[in-house]
Amino acid sequence: MQAYQTLKSHFKKISDFEHTLAILQWDEASMMPVGGNQARAEATAALSAMIHDLKVSPKVGDLLAKVDPTSLSDFDRANIKQMQRAFDKASALPTDFVEKKSLAVSKCEQAWRILRGKNDWQTFRPLLEESFKYAREEADYYAAQSGLDAYGALVDIYEPEMPVQRIEEIFNDLIAFIPDFLQSILSRTPQSSKTLAGNFPIDKQRALALTLMKAVGFDFDHGRLDTSHHPFCGGVPDDVRITTRYVDDSFLSALMGVLHETGHAMYEQGLPKEWRGQPVGTALGMMVHESQSLFWEMQVCRSKSYYKFAGSIIRGAFPGDHNATPSWSDENLWREAIKVKPGLIRIDADEVSYPLHVIMRFELEKSLFGGKLAIKDLPDAWNDKMMQYFGLRTETNYKDGVMQDVHWPAGLFGYFPCYSLGAITAAQLFSGVRRDLPNVDSLIEKGEFSPILSWLRKNVHAKARLNNAETMIKNATGEPLTSKYFIEHLKTRYMS
Amino acid sequence: MQAYQTLKSHFKKISDFEHTLAILQWDEASMMPVGGNQARAEATAALSAMIHDLKVSPKVGDLLAKVDPTSLSDFDRANIKQMQRAFDKASALPTDFVEKKSLAVSKCEQAWRILRGKNDWQTFRPLLEESFKYAREEADYYAAQSGLDAYGALVDIYEPEMPVQRIEEIFNDLIAFIPDFLQSILSRTPQSSKTLAGNFPIDKQRALALTLMKAVGFDFDHGRLDTSHHPFCGGVPDDVRITTRYVDDSFLSALMGVLHETGHAMYEQGLPKEWRGQPVGTALGMMVHESQSLFWEMQVCRSKSYYKFAGSIIRGAFPGDHNATPSWSDENLWREAIKVKPGLIRIDADEVSYPLHVIMRFELEKSLFGGKLAIKDLPDAWNDKMMQYFGLRTETNYKDGVMQDVHWPAGLFGYFPCYSLGAITAAQLFSGVRRDLPNVDSLIEKGEFSPILSWLRKNVHAKARLNNAETMIKNATGEPLTSKYFIEHLKTRYMS
Repeated sequence: MQAYQTLKSHFKKISDFEHTLAILQWDEASMMPVGGNQARAEATAALSAMIHDLKVSPKVGDLLAKVDPTSLSDFDRANIKQMQRAFDKASALPTDFVEKKSLAVSKCEQAWRILRGKNDWQTFRPLLEESFKYAREEADYYAAQSGLDAYGALVDIYEPEMPVQRIEEIFNDLIAFIPDFLQSILSRTPQSSKTLAGNFPIDKQRALALTLMKAVGFDFDHGRLDTSHHPFCGGVPDDVRITTRYVDDSFLSALMGVLHETGHAMYEQGLPKEWRGQPVGTALGMMVHESQSLFWEMQVCRSKSYYKFAGSIIRGAFPGDHNATPSWSDENLWREAIKVKPGLIRIDADEVSYPLHVIMRFELEKSLFGGKLAIKDLPDAWNDKMMQYFGLRTETNYKDGVMQDVHWPAGLFGYFPCYSLGAITAAQLFSGVRRDLPNVDSLIEKGEFSPILSWLRKNVHAKARLNNAETMIKNATGEPLTSKYFIEHLKTRYMS
Repeated sequence: MQAYQTLKSHFKKISDFEHTLAILQWDEASMMPVGGNQARAEATAALSAMIHDLKVSPKVGDLLAKVDPTSLSDFDRANIKQMQRAFDKASALPTDFVEKKSLAVSKCEQAWRILRGKNDWQTFRPLLEESFKYAREEADYYAAQSGLDAYGALVDIYEPEMPVQRIEEIFNDLIAFIPDFLQSILSRTPQSSKTLAGNFPIDKQRALALTLMKAVGFDFDHGRLDTSHHPFCGGVPDDVRITTRYVDDSFLSALMGVLHETGHAMYEQGLPKEWRGQPVGTALGMMVHESQSLFWEMQVCRSKSYYKFAGSIIRGAFPGDHNATPSWSDENLWREAIKVKPGLIRIDADEVSYPLHVIMRFELEKSLFGGKLAIKDLPDAWNDKMMQYFGLRTETNYKDGVMQDVHWPAGLFGYFPCYSLGAITAAQLFSGVRRDLPNVDSLIEKGEFSPILSWLRKNVHAKARLNNAETMIKNATGEPLTSKYFIEHLKTRYMS
């Protein structure tokens, strides 16, 4: 098994350089001064190209051909499968292409950070066209190798072995259910809660976020919380870096954002230590990653029970007379957290309308990669979809329309479906938790999150990439991925 | 000149990876949670080894042999000389040695961050022995190549072409002058000022530091200020990362620390943009680097004139009734800044006693590398030197004795002399500024620092590695490096 040992060393080295890249990327988004852009883009491109060279080394192909998996453990065999996948995916792309793409998307993303605030679509458009051009070329390379179509090949990058057709089936369930359901929620009066007005100093918001991160089980010996333009979870399993952004006239959105990223982070922190640095030891695709963030944000931290635990902590974080008013009751804090109000911005959307944001992006991406839509026509197409699903106009409001997300500037096409697939998976996993821990509501109410985290550790985190998502979900819950638990969850929470 | 162009691309790539390493190191010291240690040490070691491989690539040697410098510019010729130097220095060390050393010193430095606080010499000693073992082996490799002795070969790493014998000559001037001079300062009554007691919130200290950094010319589009256990200047010229540490019952020490690191940072920021990523475009050795930090800290920001500018800004940063008391006058703030009080800690030392801290470390290092002293006997030898130069005991106080500095845990032996050589250079450069800007005191008093910074930009920063330190200093001031301006400076400031 010398060949396998050599492969393990080689992939550990790749993992070390990916650690480096992850920290650079976190730094770029949360720490780097603006004048560092050009030098950082060059350094990141050089590092990405070097990682790519290691991945496509002919040595890897030769060694993989020599490995005999017969007598190996399940994890070792899955590790070899993941090595093969990494080698194939990387080999699909020429090295100079990877370097050029990295430079282009880095430039586009950095420009986006400035131009979005200025609502400047005209300056941004050619940069986005460049980013898309590279994504399109990348998709063609993958498609040529896998036999999938261009868009399907990109989706497969983010959630392996999840066909576009399967996504369409599941999304069709939501298209059939959500619009009417949304209207029936909105037509109820009173729909919602009393607003929590006030000034919420950022240092106090941060202190509250840290307290509630700790409560659910974030390990601060292996991670930290910072701020960035667009919240994300980065870093490495032993050192997870999550970010949020605060505004000082409301706190709930940033807080829920932190708990969302905390879910991502606890998945990383829970990956099996004995498989650190190996392909099988990494997280499954982004659908599963999103299921972990949405499990905590949506299933746990927006449940009625959670506010019986967190209400007094939240009130304690912002002391004052307002605390005695009905707006600040456990009940109303919960009502605020589940307020349904369709709007322009995906990341601010409630969980009922959120899938429609995703589905419209999924449809636009399919059109872009199917050659039926050009970037220059994207703002109009965006407006049409917003009218269709939400009855809202975005025309010249690029900032809150087509320029609102970091994904496309960063070259991430095919990623969006993972968000709603993740919400669906989260609901299904929570049904598994409820089956095994029938007192889960009372655990949440008492702030006893560790049995819940343990369930995820055992059924999701510790499995890493042993199986694909469908198999992992089936093993954990007894059923293949289905929209029914998500739809049931929405009905229970919003119409009961 | 194809060979030279290929070399330039190769060294640019090395520079990109060194950028990466610099940001990782900054992160490790200022941001990383403690549980990230092991994974980070492995990532850093892998990256260091890869940089080393690029430096020693036989391709570099072949290309250097082919380059014909005849028709090239001065900068290009110096660039080739620096490429040769980088290749030689790196070739002196086997790749596996570099990786092992990086792991060992990373482990030792990380342990030091915890063990120093616990005064735990016993646990720390074997780790320091390991760090020293690697430094010793490194010195032997360099010595074998250069013909210098082991210690001289290390000193040459930090300040190229600066012989140990030359350092001894200059330090002998200081040994002859400082101890008596120090006694005569201390015997004067009243020696000094009224103490600035109070509580100085860290956010206010930080705001003041940012204001005064900006005033002298730090470019915040290309750098930032954070906190770390041991202050340093890291990052890259387009994105310089400086750190400090605050205590809440005094502010002057942290503030002077910030202005010190600001001097380092402005040197990096002032390096010629057209030579970014090339060996000739980097800073000269650490003596010159320290001259830039000490130029701003000691020559400018501890001058009497500076407090006529900064006094009102400092008082404004900490508003209250105390501002009207004599302790907070411009005159007394200055007195506080130049208070002479010999003590245990090098980084807290005044500029009169500071060279004695350096000289004792220089002597200890010479003994360690001369084989006359073992790490296990270092605490006793340290105590003897402290008694000899300061009449102070450190025996079991390892924390404020032999464990006080990051340098040795980090494997940096031979670095200390640069601090005092830097102080001497700073005084000599300031004499050059005074020659060219006779109204320099009045410029400082008015807060007009840009003519001073421009002088450094032109005579020091823009030259990068065109010449060695001796030549740069002679070109800038008309004289080779001499202790006389430093000694004059001390006499003028402390005994006039």
